[in-house]
Amino acid sequence: MSALQEISLNIRNMKQLEYSVLARRTNQIKDELKKGVKKSYREVIDVSWGDPHRAGVKPLSFVRQVLAACIYPQLMDGDKLMVDVKQRAQMLLRACPGGSVGSYCATAGVPEIVERVSEYITRRDGGVPSHPENIYISSGSQWALTNILKVLVNSEASPRTGVLTPVPCHSTTILSLMALGAEVVPYYLREEQGWALDVEELQRAWGSAKEVCNPVGLYVINPGNPAGYVQSRKSMQEVIRFAAEKRLFLLADEVYQDCVFGEETEFVSYKRALAEMGSPLSDTVELASFHTTSKGLMGECGLRAGYVELVNLDPAVMKHIYSLFSADSCAPVLGQFALDVMTNPPQPGDPSYPLYMKETQHIRTSVAENVRRVEEVINSLPGFSCQPVEGGAFAFPRVFLPPKAIETAKELGMKPDTFYCMRLLEEAGVLSSPGSEYGQQEGTYHIRFCIMTPSEIMEEILRRLSTFHKRFMNEFS
Amino acid sequence: MSALQEISLNIRNMKQLEYSVLARRTNQIKDELKKGVKKSYREVIDVSWGDPHRAGVKPLSFVRQVLAACIYPQLMDGDKLMVDVKQRAQMLLRACPGGSVGSYCATAGVPEIVERVSEYITRRDGGVPSHPENIYISSGSQWALTNILKVLVNSEASPRTGVLTPVPCHSTTILSLMALGAEVVPYYLREEQGWALDVEELQRAWGSAKEVCNPVGLYVINPGNPAGYVQSRKSMQEVIRFAAEKRLFLLADEVYQDCVFGEETEFVSYKRALAEMGSPLSDTVELASFHTTSKGLMGECGLRAGYVELVNLDPAVMKHIYSLFSADSCAPVLGQFALDVMTNPPQPGDPSYPLYMKETQHIRTSVAENVRRVEEVINSLPGFSCQPVEGGAFAFPRVFLPPKAIETAKELGMKPDTFYCMRLLEEAGVLSSPGSEYGQQEGTYHIRFCIMTPSEIMEEILRRLSTFHKRFMNEFS
Repeated sequence: MSALQEISLNIRNMKQLEYSVLARRTNQIKDELKKGVKKSYREVIDVSWGDPHRAGVKPLSFVRQVLAACIYPQLMDGDKLMVDVKQRAQMLLRACPGGSVGSYCATAGVPEIVERVSEYITRRDGGVPSHPENIYISSGSQWALTNILKVLVNSEASPRTGVLTPVPCHSTTILSLMALGAEVVPYYLREEQGWALDVEELQRAWGSAKEVCNPVGLYVINPGNPAGYVQSRKSMQEVIRFAAEKRLFLLADEVYQDCVFGEETEFVSYKRALAEMGSPLSDTVELASFHTTSKGLMGECGLRAGYVELVNLDPAVMKHIYSLFSADSCAPVLGQFALDVMTNPPQPGDPSYPLYMKETQHIRTSVAENVRRVEEVINSLPGFSCQPVEGGAFAFPRVFLPPKAIETAKELGMKPDTFYCMRLLEEAGVLSSPGSEYGQQEGTYHIRFCIMTPSEIMEEILRRLSTFHKRFMNEFS
Repeated sequence: MSALQEISLNIRNMKQLEYSVLARRTNQIKDELKKGVKKSYREVIDVSWGDPHRAGVKPLSFVRQVLAACIYPQLMDGDKLMVDVKQRAQMLLRACPGGSVGSYCATAGVPEIVERVSEYITRRDGGVPSHPENIYISSGSQWALTNILKVLVNSEASPRTGVLTPVPCHSTTILSLMALGAEVVPYYLREEQGWALDVEELQRAWGSAKEVCNPVGLYVINPGNPAGYVQSRKSMQEVIRFAAEKRLFLLADEVYQDCVFGEETEFVSYKRALAEMGSPLSDTVELASFHTTSKGLMGECGLRAGYVELVNLDPAVMKHIYSLFSADSCAPVLGQFALDVMTNPPQPGDPSYPLYMKETQHIRTSVAENVRRVEEVINSLPGFSCQPVEGGAFAFPRVFLPPKAIETAKELGMKPDTFYCMRLLEEAGVLSSPGSEYGQQEGTYHIRFCIMTPSEIMEEILRRLSTFHKRFMNEFS
């Protein structure tokens, strides 16, 4: 094992330790409940993942019908499936060698699907053109991100390659950066301003980075994860100007683009914002934008499909990227089909449209209601504060832990917010994850939980959380 | 881009160039045929991949029915599906969080499936115990292999890390080794002895390697790809003793274990061979064995699922491997379900058993017949010679190219066997791949083509190949 591998192993283990303590205890509790051990709850609710189906959200019928028809085309013989389901399945199967989802496809994805994803992006961005040759479909967006990072990060460079990364940030990207030997350069989001991305803070981070590494990339998450902000066009323009000035490659994690809940809030892609700024910025700033079937209303995490669109990259680099993607023979074909449906859902007039609208609207309404209730309930509790959740799949409220709680945690060898999450799990049967997993300003503590649940489950979570939180604060005050 | 990245990029491009010239021309020919350009064939037959469905093999009904039921559980309401299909689907869905294939699962795979794969391995190996904690399910076996190589290969070491690799060898592993900065140490299989793996040749390769790198791994492919040999128990024992003596980690690519055609031929896993040799070897030789749903009779390449089983690894290394696998959130859940069926097919008495047997027997019989015909036809042609194909998915015959053909190829800037493949494509509409893609003894030339096709397609291929080959040899004699 190389020294680098050992270091990254240690850091990974540290990062994973906090959560794995909770996961292990969850499994024990589940076993205890099965054996009839009495607790104040009958089952553990797991909202520690960004995984809607795990949290009780139902899959979309159109997606599943199309996939089932593709898997077992004999299903199309009867009259059980709507005509648009059959047409979609036939179109997708025609695009597969041998007409089977069991065949390999091209490195960048099934060409017809890549084309349709590209058309979707053009529509989404109000006509800003997207080109199929700039799109790679992969086994999830994180795999695509890792491949792009491999191009950016020179693991042998001295000083090391730096990538500016938000705090808080979901841990998968940080782990990828560390595994590649990159320097993670933290910039802090302004919690008190609704987790705003502040360019002055980017400046500060870049300045401090220059002393220890060579910053080449800027990673942004919009809508946020774990913090549920949605960036304004103006904020994005500032970020783009900053990236241009410092010659940073922009890595835009936009996987929650379909999950925007604020009434006045709109998702604008970095690609669109960049195009609207015109030349020379629109011709020069290098950008990679990521999306996935795992997130959004579809929530098909287990199918493993995502894509990256690349903008303004040098042709030689594009060739290198092709090589990197070809190391994985191809993305799962069924996941690619789900991506086709995500980017090309049923349209008004299609037989499946009414049910599709009903199901997606139901999810939207439930999650919007969940968000309203989460903010209402949490902000009414003592020592608990939740910024507006405008998008994404998570609430990331701040817990003002009493000094006695912090001290007790330290005595137990736990981080204070892990201690809080552990007690919440133990006493109320709710599995959330601690802010220390994601990074937070020193001396502040948070918890993260998924808001994409059926409303009745969110009510139950809030009921358990409220009762627990009051008791906890009393105990340690 | 780092120097290393640049070098590996160049080598990759070289490796891919030969084939991509053929693939590009194939697309042009397909377009020409669509536009009505007259040729001696009506469509191109693509046997350049190890992809049975692409080559016309039909998917297995039981696999597809179970997956369709899991994707769209409403299908189980009617009476269209057999009771064992429903039971299997229900069992698999119970193992998923939220009962959905759309949920993430554990890093190593759905625990219940890992357990069942482990039981299968124990049965396969005549009772040699397999432990679920040593198994990782991944997005295809190649992804698992790359992760294991990451542990073995220290990209910063001097001298470089070496891995003994067979010649010929399918190119994906070679590309993975190069991308990680490993030294590929070639050992040549003995074509004239049916592509036998000769320990003396391993000794020679190891000796020559010691001068330029630090050999730590030995990669074996059994059954072979592209060469269709199946190793005997005795040969494996010799290889194991050699690995033990030189302290090499054994990487056993056993993805074609279900594709053995020789009448007297039997697949024995390296794990079983090792266990049978007893202590101290069975307790010390480090081994990774790979398998996949892409290969074998199922041929579900597009679902992307495989696994690795690890034997005799240090617990600290196992912990590191867990970290590497956790970088990819999880393998595609539907692929994992296919893996469950592959390792646990319907049994006598099950309602789906008769059809399952009929379909798998049909594939076995066709491929055995294909192999017989390929050997018969090719060995009857002048300047063409095919070793017995005992297993795997490919024939890899040697073409004795006339000096004039070699000269013409050089004038065209092509490798001689690429020139042969190009002419075969152009004149006969058969897409194969040249031996130079896989490595071969200098001065020898081969072509590789998939033998897993329906029998009538193989007859058509052999008819086209025979006519073409005779004309080609005449032209250049």
